[in-house]
Amino acid sequence: MRMIHTIDDMRHLVGECRQQGKTIGFVPTMGYLHEGHMSLVRRAKAECDFVVMSIFVNPLQFGPAEDYEQYPRNLDRDANLAKNAGVDAIFVPSVNEMYPQKQLVFVEVEEITNNLCGVSRPGHFRGVATVVAKLLNIVQPDKAFFGQKDAQQVRVIQQMVQDLNMPVEIVPCPIVRESDGLAMSSRNVYLSSEERLQALSIQRALLHAEELFKTGERSATVIEQQIRSIIEAEPLAEVDYIKIVDLQNLTDVSTIEDDSLLAVAVRFGGTRLIDNTILYVKEGQPCFAQ
Amino acid sequence: MRMIHTIDDMRHLVGECRQQGKTIGFVPTMGYLHEGHMSLVRRAKAECDFVVMSIFVNPLQFGPAEDYEQYPRNLDRDANLAKNAGVDAIFVPSVNEMYPQKQLVFVEVEEITNNLCGVSRPGHFRGVATVVAKLLNIVQPDKAFFGQKDAQQVRVIQQMVQDLNMPVEIVPCPIVRESDGLAMSSRNVYLSSEERLQALSIQRALLHAEELFKTGERSATVIEQQIRSIIEAEPLAEVDYIKIVDLQNLTDVSTIEDDSLLAVAVRFGGTRLIDNTILYVKEGQPCFAQ
Repeated sequence: MRMIHTIDDMRHLVGECRQQGKTIGFVPTMGYLHEGHMSLVRRAKAECDFVVMSIFVNPLQFGPAEDYEQYPRNLDRDANLAKNAGVDAIFVPSVNEMYPQKQLVFVEVEEITNNLCGVSRPGHFRGVATVVAKLLNIVQPDKAFFGQKDAQQVRVIQQMVQDLNMPVEIVPCPIVRESDGLAMSSRNVYLSSEERLQALSIQRALLHAEELFKTGERSATVIEQQIRSIIEAEPLAEVDYIKIVDLQNLTDVSTIEDDSLLAVAVRFGGTRLIDNTILYVKEGQPCFAQ
Repeated sequence: MRMIHTIDDMRHLVGECRQQGKTIGFVPTMGYLHEGHMSLVRRAKAECDFVVMSIFVNPLQFGPAEDYEQYPRNLDRDANLAKNAGVDAIFVPSVNEMYPQKQLVFVEVEEITNNLCGVSRPGHFRGVATVVAKLLNIVQPDKAFFGQKDAQQVRVIQQMVQDLNMPVEIVPCPIVRESDGLAMSSRNVYLSSEERLQALSIQRALLHAEELFKTGERSATVIEQQIRSIIEAEPLAEVDYIKIVDLQNLTDVSTIEDDSLLAVAVRFGGTRLIDNTILYVKEGQPCFAQ
């Protein structure tokens, strides 16, 4: 496995792949890899000839009061995991390599960033869209693989690729969970054992909501309220949002009539966790990964 | 010469070129071609194997009170001129092809759009950067050629390509002038003969400024005032701006100590003309086309 630190070296490698007629699959990450990332790599390997993973904790997508500094990092461990998973190259640029001078150009995604994490984390999706645009322009993959735990991020990236006509296919991949049901996240290491235990209420609540939906409940308010009472039964839980939104435009819905996203963000102690599930109304027309 | 109307067909052609190992040169235009555009084509042909010209009047870069509707269009004439100049393919998408649904994603360029035309035309450079990003992603050229008459546009595009790491080289090309000195522009056809005559004051003023600069004048205010009095001697002239700005960050300068851009925008009747010249301070370090 190649470890690449500069944009020039990355471009050179991409050029070689192209000359050899190889398709490139790309898995952008912020490192501290877990099984969720590994599932993206497996999918990329299944669909592409050459797999590039980037590991870059992007300062642009963190707010001033957020966890950029303490975000967990361990490059040795990540490199081993990537190598064992069959990644062909990891791209590990420094902040200075990605932002050699003050960034003046930003990719702004409107409307679909006006809800959910876009409200709780002002500027977050601008930072995400901008760095993903940069990475896609550097790696020039045929396909890029994103985890659906960050459902709004997937929508934002899909919209960016569509509206800017970027020559890449975005492949959303299903949420991967710990054996106890907690959605995999690099931030899970922040949790104390007590917080971790209480955080399991999130998936319990989502499963309950799916059950309600399957048995015919279509009132978003009713479902949201039941989720809230399950999660807020945990004394350490502080709900950021619990929302059912339209899957395409991410606006609030009151009655579930189209495919919808049920998304939650909850803090346990200082740790903000997100999770979601998709409520498909249109049989056989799933818009996201299955 | 191929005439291409859809993004899919354009991508297909680009793929063919790549397979044949051809480099692609790209000349984006809004059509109503003139000798300025032709000079870009000649440069593209000299430097690339295959030349694509786009002809697209981009609604996104026009303000609500601007001339989108009446902007001159003549595809038959343009296609002939392009063919005779040796363009290999023209890409002529409809507005619906470029914007099939409401555009939610925009490329925002900060700071260098806060002066000059960025002030007079709010939203203009957002529209320019966004459509050029789209076109570059569709055509995927090795080099793209832009006229320096739109000096701020060139800076904006260069900044976009740099900050978003787009895999293309931007080639700025010198201003081309009519035999009487008026900078070539598709909008020159709007001018009455009287307006056109008075518009020649712009280049007279720029030449006078260059002369002042060459003989040692370094006060931006002094130069700007003399330009203003030459242009405002014409009764139909309405100055939008006359400014000397830093060539890199496009902020106003009072004393010319670094390479600077002298830029003017003047209305004659309803027609807004822009023109500029670069005042090089650093011998042998020109940043723009020469």
